Amino acid sequence: MNQRSDGWRQRALSGLAAAAIVLIAAHARAQTDPLPSWNDGPAKKAIVEFVLVTTTQGAPKFVPPAERIAVFDQDGTLWVEHPMYTQVIYCLERVPAVVAQKPELKEVEPFKTVISGNRDAIAKLTMPDLVKILAATLTGMSVDEFKAEVAKWMATAKHPRWNRPYTELTYQPMQEVLKYLRASGYKTYIVTGGGQDFVRVYAEQVYGIPPEQVVGTMGGTKYGYGKDGKPFLTKEPKLLLNDNNAGKPEGIHLMIGRRPYAAFGNSPGDQQMLEYTRAGDGARLAILVLHDDPAREYAYGPAQGLPDTKVGAFTQALYNEAIKKGWTVISMKNDWKQVFAFEK
Amino acid sequence: MNQRSDGWRQRALSGLAAAAIVLIAAHARAQTDPLPSWNDGPAKKAIVEFVLVTTTQGAPKFVPPAERIAVFDQDGTLWVEHPMYTQVIYCLERVPAVVAQKPELKEVEPFKTVISGNRDAIAKLTMPDLVKILAATLTGMSVDEFKAEVAKWMATAKHPRWNRPYTELTYQPMQEVLKYLRASGYKTYIVTGGGQDFVRVYAEQVYGIPPEQVVGTMGGTKYGYGKDGKPFLTKEPKLLLNDNNAGKPEGIHLMIGRRPYAAFGNSPGDQQMLEYTRAGDGARLAILVLHDDPAREYAYGPAQGLPDTKVGAFTQALYNEAIKKGWTVISMKNDWKQVFAFEK
Repeated sequence: MNQRSDGWRQRALSGLAAAAIVLIAAHARAQTDPLPSWNDGPAKKAIVEFVLVTTTQGAPKFVPPAERIAVFDQDGTLWVEHPMYTQVIYCLERVPAVVAQKPELKEVEPFKTVISGNRDAIAKLTMPDLVKILAATLTGMSVDEFKAEVAKWMATAKHPRWNRPYTELTYQPMQEVLKYLRASGYKTYIVTGGGQDFVRVYAEQVYGIPPEQVVGTMGGTKYGYGKDGKPFLTKEPKLLLNDNNAGKPEGIHLMIGRRPYAAFGNSPGDQQMLEYTRAGDGARLAILVLHDDPAREYAYGPAQGLPDTKVGAFTQALYNEAIKKGWTVISMKNDWKQVFAFEK
Repeated sequence: MNQRSDGWRQRALSGLAAAAIVLIAAHARAQTDPLPSWNDGPAKKAIVEFVLVTTTQGAPKFVPPAERIAVFDQDGTLWVEHPMYTQVIYCLERVPAVVAQKPELKEVEPFKTVISGNRDAIAKLTMPDLVKILAATLTGMSVDEFKAEVAKWMATAKHPRWNRPYTELTYQPMQEVLKYLRASGYKTYIVTGGGQDFVRVYAEQVYGIPPEQVVGTMGGTKYGYGKDGKPFLTKEPKLLLNDNNAGKPEGIHLMIGRRPYAAFGNSPGDQQMLEYTRAGDGARLAILVLHDDPAREYAYGPAQGLPDTKVGAFTQALYNEAIKKGWTVISMKNDWKQVFAFEK
């Protein structure tokens, strides 16, 4: 009888202790929630648990600080990619300046169409057309000139829907993830299909990610000397690596040389990066952003019956793959309390 | 008269104060000399002054921590490159294993010569022969297999002169520079003509430099899936960038995206990297190691009448360039109190 009552008392006490621990933990979390723009749900839970299991000293899935690498796609994962990739807008808007320097291009396609300003015709440009426009606007100048041009454009260009600089159209919840991971000892990298040098221009200011942590589509440069004898690098129309699809893990190996522990993406171009990340030992986080919020951002991609679009379409096949492999899917609509910082 | 004596007294006092400051500084330095294996001289002075002027808050040449990048050639700058580059030795010693897997190579040159073990014949192999050997031994396997093979070899291979692992043949004074720069907020990079993946295998253990801070000659990889469905990367015989000469600043731009503030090299293959570094604004350090110490290491390169060699020759032209441009030249013989850690 005494024993039984002791047992009861013990169970009650340990129950109370457990409840107290939960309360204390909840209190601590409430005070220092690293992800305040996230609603409680499976996505937030997956991120927080990943950080806990990989950074708690002595935990079986602890990752030494030097190996803590997290990679993020940019367009559609860290900032808005609709109605068009920012870099494509930049290239189209640079065409008049390029044609002014090389007037012979005025009557040559696809430059003629871009100069015409005919939006329907521009929207119908083919991939080979686009490649010509990219080569003409992203190469042929020194790396310093290119950087200055992009910085100047970024300071004034605005997104048509919000009438704000593109650099303000980053997702507040993802900015919190970047900061949370860095505060937890992770090195954060952008791994983008966009031009490596293009994204480098603003990544430090916008995301706190330095140029050496931007992996993107890579072009060659050529070392030479100016009239003053000073050496400089010229951007060449030579593709070294197309940082999309299989190119993403290849680019990660080239630039980082380690397999990431966490990868964030939003489209089929990110699939291989997520697979590669998850194929490592221990705790590996693979997350996809689903754009299902037409009111605050956009809804697109055939997954879950959303409209198909050219840009960043989250396909049904990718969605099935994510579910099959246990990747986490972020519902922008349900998981994010706030999308942009300026909503406050 | 009073005024004059006041003036004298003031001058004497400020002279004393200056002397006291120098003494205090010297005392502080003596207690915490960051470069104990260096003799006092122009090279040590140049390094210490560079660190002071670029890291003292408020100094006119202060460099913000995020921009503090220092780059180091490896072979001949951080460790011994004679009588042959370590990677070339690795490749030659891997040939039997490759031939065992592909017996048809047994009768094919240059593999036949390497297998023969005839040192004179091996020494006469041409550059195209060497390229074939590098392709056969550095590509065709997964990046993980390659890493394991190199690590295994490094653990047992020994330098013929010292009978010690190559990883012990790093220059103690340069290890001190690496640590001193890192303690001063600099990110240290290796920028090597050697294979990027090869050097990455041991750079963290040997120099405290992580894989993502190794820039080297870069080959492509190919993403694919194993029989178990697991993704992996295969090393391809596709050269992306030859990280020598003009390739060094090009590789720096590709991998880092910033101009370094300090560059260390020892041969004509480093010249462009040093030029590129020095062409930046503010304080920029360019340093060359001169191998003039046959007793403790080697003496080679036609500069100052030293013997010419195939490997890492410090040419007279490079020496003249260094003097003309005000680069610092390290005399191994005069500037280094100790060359290797094991001398202690």
